Amino acid sequence: MDNVIADVETHFVDWYERDYGIRVEREQMLGKPESEALPDKEAVWKFVFTPGFFRTVPVIPGAVEGVKELMKYYRVYIVSAAMEFPQSLFEKYEWLKEHFPFIKWNHIVFCGDKSIINTDYLVDDHIKNLDNCSGKALLYTASHNIDIKHHERLNDWKEVVAWFRREQQEQ
Amino acid sequence: MDNVIADVETHFVDWYERDYGIRVEREQMLGKPESEALPDKEAVWKFVFTPGFFRTVPVIPGAVEGVKELMKYYRVYIVSAAMEFPQSLFEKYEWLKEHFPFIKWNHIVFCGDKSIINTDYLVDDHIKNLDNCSGKALLYTASHNIDIKHHERLNDWKEVVAWFRREQQEQ
Repeated sequence: MDNVIADVETHFVDWYERDYGIRVEREQMLGKPESEALPDKEAVWKFVFTPGFFRTVPVIPGAVEGVKELMKYYRVYIVSAAMEFPQSLFEKYEWLKEHFPFIKWNHIVFCGDKSIINTDYLVDDHIKNLDNCSGKALLYTASHNIDIKHHERLNDWKEVVAWFRREQQEQ
Repeated sequence: MDNVIADVETHFVDWYERDYGIRVEREQMLGKPESEALPDKEAVWKFVFTPGFFRTVPVIPGAVEGVKELMKYYRVYIVSAAMEFPQSLFEKYEWLKEHFPFIKWNHIVFCGDKSIINTDYLVDDHIKNLDNCSGKALLYTASHNIDIKHHERLNDWKEVVAWFRREQQEQ
């Protein structure tokens, strides 16, 4: 969910500018863990525990159309490691209902450790999730993962849709 | 979670008595779907959507000690089809924190359809979950499932612990 369909990175930058008056450039965030990418290292933690943060995250460009496209050929599940921020659970559900109303409740999973999720594919921005997944792992590009080399990388939703279209045709 | 560690059945009966003045006996509920087990068929739906319902469910007798015992030998995950009642998400999380504080957030999963959960075992009261699970299915007895014959049945937490102890010794 975060950094694949929900643009948490942009939301961090926007909230940081709002609260600290400094616009952080993407170039400064490259290769740094999310929690260390903003000048004040406390900011990310403060934001993710602020009510409303997850409810107001912008959608990643192309994600709505992309997920709709994938749903023509695949059973798509939204799996979010939301349990780390329990106050976000209902916000994330409401966010999905607003932006992805075509995803039914029974295709939403909020978990902690994604290793028990059994899907054929996993598109994720975190190697901690991809390294332990049972299906084919696909790394969705975010500033924090830019130096990761050991997973196939998809840079945007255009690439996601193209990858799964090829995969579908090869089957 | 529900009817395995959280005694939803008892909670239905208690709330029904509180609101309707009638104590429904277990014998009357046997073999009936949960939503049809109380005289007023609307009651169950009303209860599950009432704020506080899931937060105040009693614990199934022996569940706390049983889960602790299993955790000596197994990685135990709490998997709840909570997404059907999204307002329950935070309540269920808070309930777990109160009664099962020894279960870490990363071992909690709130989902809809449990078929994408990849565990070696699943203890559940619903055949809709057990029939599609990838691991060994174990039916935890509830009034509504009393007539089900096609899964191994565990009647209480004493039987759960004994079953897994045997399983552990055979491996």
